[in-house]
Amino acid sequence: MPRISLNDISTRAPKGFDKQETKLKTAGLLEELDELQNLLYAESKHSILVIIQGMDASGKDGAIRNVFGRLNPQGVMVKSFKVPTQEELAHDFLWRIHANTPGRGMIQLFNRSHYEDVLVTRVHKWCNDSLAKKRMKAINDFEKLLQEHNNTHILKFYLHVSREEQHVRLHERISMREKQWKYNEKDFEESELWDIYREMYEDCFEHCDSPSWIIVPSDQNWYKEYLMADNLHKLMKSLDMKYPGLKK
Amino acid sequence: MPRISLNDISTRAPKGFDKQETKLKTAGLLEELDELQNLLYAESKHSILVIIQGMDASGKDGAIRNVFGRLNPQGVMVKSFKVPTQEELAHDFLWRIHANTPGRGMIQLFNRSHYEDVLVTRVHKWCNDSLAKKRMKAINDFEKLLQEHNNTHILKFYLHVSREEQHVRLHERISMREKQWKYNEKDFEESELWDIYREMYEDCFEHCDSPSWIIVPSDQNWYKEYLMADNLHKLMKSLDMKYPGLKK
Repeated sequence: MPRISLNDISTRAPKGFDKQETKLKTAGLLEELDELQNLLYAESKHSILVIIQGMDASGKDGAIRNVFGRLNPQGVMVKSFKVPTQEELAHDFLWRIHANTPGRGMIQLFNRSHYEDVLVTRVHKWCNDSLAKKRMKAINDFEKLLQEHNNTHILKFYLHVSREEQHVRLHERISMREKQWKYNEKDFEESELWDIYREMYEDCFEHCDSPSWIIVPSDQNWYKEYLMADNLHKLMKSLDMKYPGLKK
Repeated sequence: MPRISLNDISTRAPKGFDKQETKLKTAGLLEELDELQNLLYAESKHSILVIIQGMDASGKDGAIRNVFGRLNPQGVMVKSFKVPTQEELAHDFLWRIHANTPGRGMIQLFNRSHYEDVLVTRVHKWCNDSLAKKRMKAINDFEKLLQEHNNTHILKFYLHVSREEQHVRLHERISMREKQWKYNEKDFEESELWDIYREMYEDCFEHCDSPSWIIVPSDQNWYKEYLMADNLHKLMKSLDMKYPGLKK
């Protein structure tokens, strides 16, 4: 797909979205999602993989809590991908990812994902352009496998915050006692690499676009949560699911 | 690659191979393989995946015991793929396969493999031609991932027995007490489907040929074991491995 320039996309809600009205809409969507998730689980025909990526402090944890926290935990699993372990490093980069893909009937959330292997790794020059190209091709093949061979529907969310908002939030991690546990001394160093991260993300959007990424303006959490719930809702409605009858 | 016709390939050792001499050669190879396996493990740069396929009673279990049984079990793992479990069936067909791929330094044996998803499944019409085509494409992408992204070297062995030899061995499963545990009442029914199996195998050789399959004449176990050991030996020698020095 044509290259997206993140600098041209607003990090705030479009005009016409009122905070209170939008929050009510989100609440309505979450109620319906609860029912749809039950149907997904009962039918066990489709699975959903939600990939959540974004710069530090873009609100990934909050999105997981507020958009998916109301669903039946029996049908929703979350996997956070951290720095790989020795065992994971002894395998190809998609090995630990594949092990965590959803079985039919399930919603699986990835807090960070295989995309880190063409993001943080490229920013820090652990992965050069030629290897990144090969990895993106492997990612496309892998996502196709999930989609074509297991009815896995993939939502890729990029949580789009401004650098200013990121700084506000990183400073809160120092100043607000209940956020201090999130602070990492490297947060500000990483933030200096903003423009390179942005470029690497734009590369992913361009080359790994089946399905396309959903750019979620995320400076305001209420809009971010609405847009994610709305996309999940649209996807689940489109599946035309039915409760299975009695087993014969 | 051009289509192979299994009927045109002998299931017996080529002329000039003497049983006793060959057994001595195999013993020599196994001794060297022991050292090479140690080097593979120490260097932890490459990994080896050995896929063993073949008709019933073609000697897969014997090959595993006699060719790989002398190697250090710490560096060799065997996975037998049986009828998939409910959990495995809830995922794409490569999910359980990927979970069992070798980490660097390891030799992994597959007793049957992902190829069953385009073999037994096609013979019994659980998988139609169009799905088989998609699966074979996914298999190629997957094997490429292992090769390109984890230095995994793949050996695909097809143990090639004649139908006559298969019948002799199946009858031994009934008549010889120490082989009776292997007998399955469906063995002879499956054998009736020989020609369809053969055709489906030929399809795999043609469409999943990176790397190409090694057709192993297997009516005589001594030749089968020699050829497998020789191929593994050639592969490992080609890796130009070195013991790593002291960590800096």
